[in-house]
Amino acid sequence: MIDRLPVGATIGILGGGQLGRMLSVAASRLGFECAIYEPGSAPPAGQVAARVVTAPYGDEDALRAFAATVDVITYEFENVPTAALDILEETCPIRPNRKALGISQDRLTEKEFLNGLGLQTAPFAAISTADDLTAAVKGIGVPSILKTRRFGYDGKGQVRLGSDADIGRAIEEMAGSDAVLEGFVNFSHEVSVIGARGLNGEIACFDPGENLHDDGILRTTTVPARLSGAQKADAVLLTGKILNALDYVGVLGVELFVTPGGLIVNEIAPRVHNSGHWTQNGCVIDQFEQHIRAITGWPLGDGARHANVKMENLIGADMDRVADLSADPGVALHLYGKAEAKPGRKMGHVNRITPKD
Amino acid sequence: MIDRLPVGATIGILGGGQLGRMLSVAASRLGFECAIYEPGSAPPAGQVAARVVTAPYGDEDALRAFAATVDVITYEFENVPTAALDILEETCPIRPNRKALGISQDRLTEKEFLNGLGLQTAPFAAISTADDLTAAVKGIGVPSILKTRRFGYDGKGQVRLGSDADIGRAIEEMAGSDAVLEGFVNFSHEVSVIGARGLNGEIACFDPGENLHDDGILRTTTVPARLSGAQKADAVLLTGKILNALDYVGVLGVELFVTPGGLIVNEIAPRVHNSGHWTQNGCVIDQFEQHIRAITGWPLGDGARHANVKMENLIGADMDRVADLSADPGVALHLYGKAEAKPGRKMGHVNRITPKD
Repeated sequence: MIDRLPVGATIGILGGGQLGRMLSVAASRLGFECAIYEPGSAPPAGQVAARVVTAPYGDEDALRAFAATVDVITYEFENVPTAALDILEETCPIRPNRKALGISQDRLTEKEFLNGLGLQTAPFAAISTADDLTAAVKGIGVPSILKTRRFGYDGKGQVRLGSDADIGRAIEEMAGSDAVLEGFVNFSHEVSVIGARGLNGEIACFDPGENLHDDGILRTTTVPARLSGAQKADAVLLTGKILNALDYVGVLGVELFVTPGGLIVNEIAPRVHNSGHWTQNGCVIDQFEQHIRAITGWPLGDGARHANVKMENLIGADMDRVADLSADPGVALHLYGKAEAKPGRKMGHVNRITPKD
Repeated sequence: MIDRLPVGATIGILGGGQLGRMLSVAASRLGFECAIYEPGSAPPAGQVAARVVTAPYGDEDALRAFAATVDVITYEFENVPTAALDILEETCPIRPNRKALGISQDRLTEKEFLNGLGLQTAPFAAISTADDLTAAVKGIGVPSILKTRRFGYDGKGQVRLGSDADIGRAIEEMAGSDAVLEGFVNFSHEVSVIGARGLNGEIACFDPGENLHDDGILRTTTVPARLSGAQKADAVLLTGKILNALDYVGVLGVELFVTPGGLIVNEIAPRVHNSGHWTQNGCVIDQFEQHIRAITGWPLGDGARHANVKMENLIGADMDRVADLSADPGVALHLYGKAEAKPGRKMGHVNRITPKD
């Protein structure tokens, strides 16, 4: 039997950044209240949530109290410490589940899981020592990229290897962390699928978006993506395969490299995803509401796309463009309420709408 | 010179109901924080606002403290007591301005203002006594409707007169309040225009919507409304005339009766309006964001409509339909976070989207 949370229930969100903020707004549309758990002060999500708990993830009392006052717990980022989740889960269900979180927290486990499903990934090898790396570079070749197994995001914790001479520096930069060497993939472009799976197992995917990165940070997502009908079907089917294999509940982001030999999974994110922000102005139900619907046991919403959209992130000094952007017809602004526009910091995004092809 | 409030500024909202709630969400998209002033406890807007002040409108200290911590003040309903506004305005600008508020707070003043602009209204007469009413019924005839000059909403404070025999009861129901007798207008349907005027005087109107009421409460708004091109132009032009005459800043709702003799103004509301909720799923910029843009000195947004929409209010026991509605494709739910679904209470609305004609 499926537990559908009633209107008025409270959703606990771990992390108070922009994703938590937009989840809270979406939850309000369905009549839910949100409580934010966030170690940092003045989190963006707190400006649009019923309640904020400011406490570190190591504060067991705060975690227990939080879990006792919410009906379901979700998270806006995948690096929540395991010990905190253990405590929370004693009291309250966590969705998406621990398996999805565990797999996506570790690049090595994630790649092994994906290969186990028959899905293609970049060639990879586990790296702990300089000798591991020397051997792996022989097999995988250069250019290649060394990434920490855990806690990487937005291009952080990554070193590019152009030749054997980079091996020593690369190992140094990992500073003793376990790592994965990934071979470069010769891809024409990157797309991502924002998929959702409900508590009853139903699956829905938004149209794939095409992503452009700069310096490891997403710059734009454009829908529709350049994909053949067959590629689009592949992208959606493999997303469904991942969702089912994880017995997943919620929204999942799947990044894919498009190659002549088929789609290669770059990485998965067990949460709403930056490349899904276009849904806020391209669909009746956006990825944030879809996630809330899934984790509360509601039916998934209608994610049909009604417009072409180009989403552009506003990063750091891009905030100087807000005055111009606010006067630009067809542009929807989404700012995150962050005080300081530091270089590399995601401050907001815009969705630029044009009629559907 | 126009003061454009910077991202991060705080907007004070008088009233914590659903309109304040949706204003706060819209403000968050532009990077503003909202503070809610509301006498009642646990207001719906408080669930998605940075701060809530719970105090009566007679609490001068609370009003002064509130005004001192916000950058601009707006309101979600037109019956804010004048004395409270006097105190707030010592410290902080109130938008829309006091003139608009004063006129719309009084049905008699409002009708005289509209006639003064050359706009048609229902025939009306000021009523203080039974003698006034007897005389007025002779001139205006029956059926007609007696309404309190002030503090009426959703059909409250109104008595219908079917014959001279109703005069005594009608006066009794007014309980000493000054009133207005309005003649019935023979109209085919009601439409409304949601117009906006910026701090620099620019004007933008959303497409007119067609309204259906039941027992004095709005049930549905449908866009596009049944209007000829000329009627649509008239509706927009007269809205612009009202906005300019009031030196208005913000969103204004104008209810119009469609008759063979032209458009007749039923009433104006100096705020976001229930009949404008369809804009949330029909436009890139909705009425709530448009209001926030106007009162903060930002450029008005692009209100072009990209879909046909039927908005339906969920009133009282309509909440029993939420489970079904949540599974209905093309339906966007907007619930207000109110605890009790009392009869006649607006609990939420749905926007049903179909492709644009």
